[in-house]
This record gives sequence, structure tokens and C-alpha cells, in this order.
Amino acid sequence: MMHSFEQLSAEFATRFDISHFPSSPESLYAPADYFLRLGGKRVRPVMCLMGNELFGEIEDDAWHLAAAIELFHNFTLIHDDIMDKAPLRRGKPTVHEKYGASTALLAGDVMLVTAYDYINRVKADTRAIFQLFNATARAVCEGQQTDMDFESRERVGLDEYLRMIEWKTSVLLAASLQMGSILGGAGLGNQGHLYEFGKLLGLAFQIQDDYLDAFGDPAKFGKQVGGDIVAGKKTFLLIRTLEQASAAQHKEIRELQRAEPVARVEGMLRLFKACGVDAWARELKDKYMEAALRHLEDIAVLSRRKEPLQQLAGFLVQREY
Amino acid sequence: MMHSFEQLSAEFATRFDISHFPSSPESLYAPADYFLRLGGKRVRPVMCLMGNELFGEIEDDAWHLAAAIELFHNFTLIHDDIMDKAPLRRGKPTVHEKYGASTALLAGDVMLVTAYDYINRVKADTRAIFQLFNATARAVCEGQQTDMDFESRERVGLDEYLRMIEWKTSVLLAASLQMGSILGGAGLGNQGHLYEFGKLLGLAFQIQDDYLDAFGDPAKFGKQVGGDIVAGKKTFLLIRTLEQASAAQHKEIRELQRAEPVARVEGMLRLFKACGVDAWARELKDKYMEAALRHLEDIAVLSRRKEPLQQLAGFLVQREY
Repeated sequence: MMHSFEQLSAEFATRFDISHFPSSPESLYAPADYFLRLGGKRVRPVMCLMGNELFGEIEDDAWHLAAAIELFHNFTLIHDDIMDKAPLRRGKPTVHEKYGASTALLAGDVMLVTAYDYINRVKADTRAIFQLFNATARAVCEGQQTDMDFESRERVGLDEYLRMIEWKTSVLLAASLQMGSILGGAGLGNQGHLYEFGKLLGLAFQIQDDYLDAFGDPAKFGKQVGGDIVAGKKTFLLIRTLEQASAAQHKEIRELQRAEPVARVEGMLRLFKACGVDAWARELKDKYMEAALRHLEDIAVLSRRKEPLQQLAGFLVQREY
Repeated sequence: MMHSFEQLSAEFATRFDISHFPSSPESLYAPADYFLRLGGKRVRPVMCLMGNELFGEIEDDAWHLAAAIELFHNFTLIHDDIMDKAPLRRGKPTVHEKYGASTALLAGDVMLVTAYDYINRVKADTRAIFQLFNATARAVCEGQQTDMDFESRERVGLDEYLRMIEWKTSVLLAASLQMGSILGGAGLGNQGHLYEFGKLLGLAFQIQDDYLDAFGDPAKFGKQVGGDIVAGKKTFLLIRTLEQASAAQHKEIRELQRAEPVARVEGMLRLFKACGVDAWARELKDKYMEAALRHLEDIAVLSRRKEPLQQLAGFLVQREY
């Protein structure tokens, strides 16, 4: 019997809701525990479990690996929050905001080490797992650095931006699926399709994320609308707008950069729509989503085994707004 | 034929002087390369190689592990420098000073990941290695956090301070030796003695380091004399002084805390001597050094195989000043 996203997410949450650290020094581990208890949908560990279940029963090893992936993801969030000077995460103060930047830095470090410790609990041969995990971790760092580099650049090409998103977001989703499938004994062909499915799904998800930041319902979305605009972040929408804008619109964009936050958000949203990037983003997202689903189809297992992953795709990337 | 510290250090330096990272994004990897090229004595990787050679010929695996250990150590230095807001390391600008704190944070992260990648190249069974490496990495983080906690505390006990130094400095030296010996096929008894040797040697080294910061010859030492005093750091000397000082001397210490740096260093050095902590520190260092050497004696291999480690101990901890 295959498990749904909700079932796996709930089961993972129960198993993960333990202390992953020693009790002392509390000044280091309480901040780490605090952040893990902020929760989240636990998408990546569930993807690892689904990648595993696609090829058979979920193994104990897959639960260790899922925990490692979730710890790794939280390590990146803690460190990203420091770099982005983000005050809030999931509506609560970030670790550096609550405990200071130095402790947040160390809490992230020790979380990464703990992630590796969970991989080391995997009883199956871990060489391929470690290799993929390390390559992924490196790509995530590269993505974050590239994202920061983009902040200080005037123009960023859509291709470069896509590659950055691939590193920063997509590869971890892809690798989570693939690592689960390695434990499940998947062949390289199936591993490859699963990886591509995750990667393309991640791109679709990020386009949606950028879209919702601008056009989403703040009540549903749970984030400040136009946060990316206020932060001056490069997004799919901004990059496409800069490509599409007329000379007059470029002038308006430059003026808006000096405007007050509220006026800047209003003005940029108007420009996004004038350049048609809202419809463009929806179409691009659908394109990636369809390509992702084609890779899922190409995996050589019975169709009904793929249903949880189809459900996950629909859950992550809504077809309508 | 056993190798000396100089031989192993030179051979390691040659092998380690390659690029450990991809070429792109340069904004991430150039800072990481920059820091590694600042050099250093490469004590920890040499300890790994010596721990290996104590039980036989140096294996390829030991070189991978030595590289992992050096990368790990440099990761901790980059992150510690951020936390300590240190402008210089080995006389050159620190990574955060040269490239910004965010890039330094990420360069450290990616260096840690690369360290794990080197362990994953070890052909022998890596489970015990990963376990020891992870426990050590966790202890190093705990030591750094505890060190920061001490900064904001009025009084710190000598025992607490010793434990902090053990975590922050000693365990990595100890584990470097032990990891090399695991690859060399050492039994648990010998591993334990080697670990204790490294741990006690590390404590002796740190006492010497604190001593030299206060009483060392700045020309030989290569650091600002009294740097710890200016930074208000808890050291063996300060902690002992606070334990030994009279009421009048405590008052003087409180006044010196508000004094200008030069006057503070002069005044504190005078108090250190008045409380006899210079001689005390030399004796304590000798005590740890002797205990370390006793553990080295207890390792069940031919005496002549231990000569490089004796040389290393003498190199790290001078018997005279």
C-alpha cells in the first residue's frame, strides 16, 4: 500500500519530533532545536521517502536519510537567513534574530554535521549517497552565492537565473528523490528520470513562488506581498520584465527603485502586468510542470506506484490560482 | 623508514596545494582557495599521517583523510574569524574582511562539505571514521559556542575553561591521530592512548598559546602581544589570576577593564606576574605534556615508531621559552 503525502509528512513529523542534539551546551542546541520546531511541510524528506517507496517498501535507512535531508535543509535556511538578514521565518523570529548571528552560524554548522551523522546511520552502502549528498550541498552553496552575486548586478539573464534556481532550490528536491530511490535499489535510468522530475518540479515551484510573492493572496500565502520587490530581489518576473520593457518603462523602473516601499510594490506590480509577465510566468510554470510529469511517466515501474509523486507535484505546484 | 614532521608537512603541503573546488562560481571558490593558500603548519593532517604511520606504511586513504581534516580545520577558522570579527589571519586579511561575511560563511560551509567528500574517497570502511569525525566536529562547535558564552560571563572556573579548550582545540588534534590509526588497523586500546596523547598535548599547547600571547616575543610569535587582554578573552592566565588575586588586585583588574588598550595590557601583565601565573602556567603545561608522553609510552608498538610523535610534541610544545 503506497502512502500519500499527508501520511508520510505526518509520520515523518512524528519521528523527527525528537531531540537531535545533546542537551548541553544549551546555548548552542536550544537555538537549533528552536528552529527545527518551527516546523514546515517537510517536503524534502517526504520526497526521499517517496523515492524509496516507488521501488518497494520504505526501509529504515530511508527514514535516517530523510532526517539527514531535513536537517541539511534547515541548516541552509538558518545560514540563508543570516545572509539575507531575514527577521522572520514561518512567522517566528529567525535564529540570528533571537540568539545572535554567531550562535546562528554555529547552530547551522552543527546541524549540517548532524545531517552527516544521520547518513552514517544508513546500513546500506553509503558511498553513492554521500557523493550525491555532497554534490547537492555544494550546488546549494553555489546557488546561494550566485543569488547574492545577482543582487549587486544590474542585469541578469533568464538562463543564468534558471541555473541559479536549479542550484539553490531544485537540486535538493531532485537529490532527495534520487537518494531515496538509490536505497530502494533503482537502476541508473530510473534514478535519472526521478532526478529530472524533481529538478523540473523545483523550477516550476520557484516560478510559482516568485509569482505568488507578487500576485498571491497574502492571507493564503503567509508572506508579505511584494517582499521580493521591496528587497530588490531578482525574480523570474523582474528579469522577464527587464527583457520586455520599453525605454519608457525602463525609466519608470529606475524611478521606482528610489520610491518608498509601498509605491514601489504598486508600481512594479503594474509594470509586471503591463509587460504580461503574469501570464508568461503561469505558462512557463506549466511548461516545466509538464516536462517534469513526462519524466515521471518514463520511470519503469507500475503506474499506480507513481500516484503519490503525482499527488506531490500537484500539491507543490497548483495548476490554478 | 618513519617520516619526520618536516617531511610529512612538506609532502602534505605539496599534495594539498591543488584546487579543491570547481572553478565556478569564482565568487565562492576564489575566497575558499585564498584562505587555503594562506598556508599554516598543517599540524592536524600531519598528525593523521603520523597516527597512520605509527602502525605501518602510510596508506593512500590516510592522505585523503588528512586533506579532509585540514579542510575541516580551515572551515572552523573561517567561521571563527567571522564570529570573532578577526581582521587578520596569518598576517593576511580574513575571508570575511576581504570578501564579506556572507561569502565567508558560504565558503566555510562549502569547505566543510568538501572535507566530507574527501572522507568519502577513503576506500577502507568509513563508518568509524565518519562517527569520530562527526563527534569531533560537534565538539568543536560546542567549544566555540562555550568560548563565546564565557565572554559575557564575569567568572569562569578553571575546570570549565579546560573543558572548553578540550572541545575547541584538543579533540581535533586527538581525533586526527586516532583517525589515522584506525586506517592503520590500530586496536581500541592503542587508539585510546593515542587519542589521550593528542588531547593532553592540545591542552599543553593551548596553555602555551595563552602564555605566549601575554609573555611571548612578538617578533617570534607573529601576533600582537596582549591580544587576548585587549579582546577581553578568558585565558588560562586571566582565570587563574581572578582566582588568586587579592581584593585590591580585583579592584585594579576592574579599573584596567576601562583603561586604554596599551595601559590595560601593561597593567594586566604586571598583575599576571604578581599573582605568579606565569610560572604556574609553565608548570601546568609541563604537567599536561608529561601526561601526554606517558600515554604515548603506553602504546604497544616499537619505541622507534613513536619518535616522530615525540618530535611533534616537542615541536608543538616547547620545553623552554
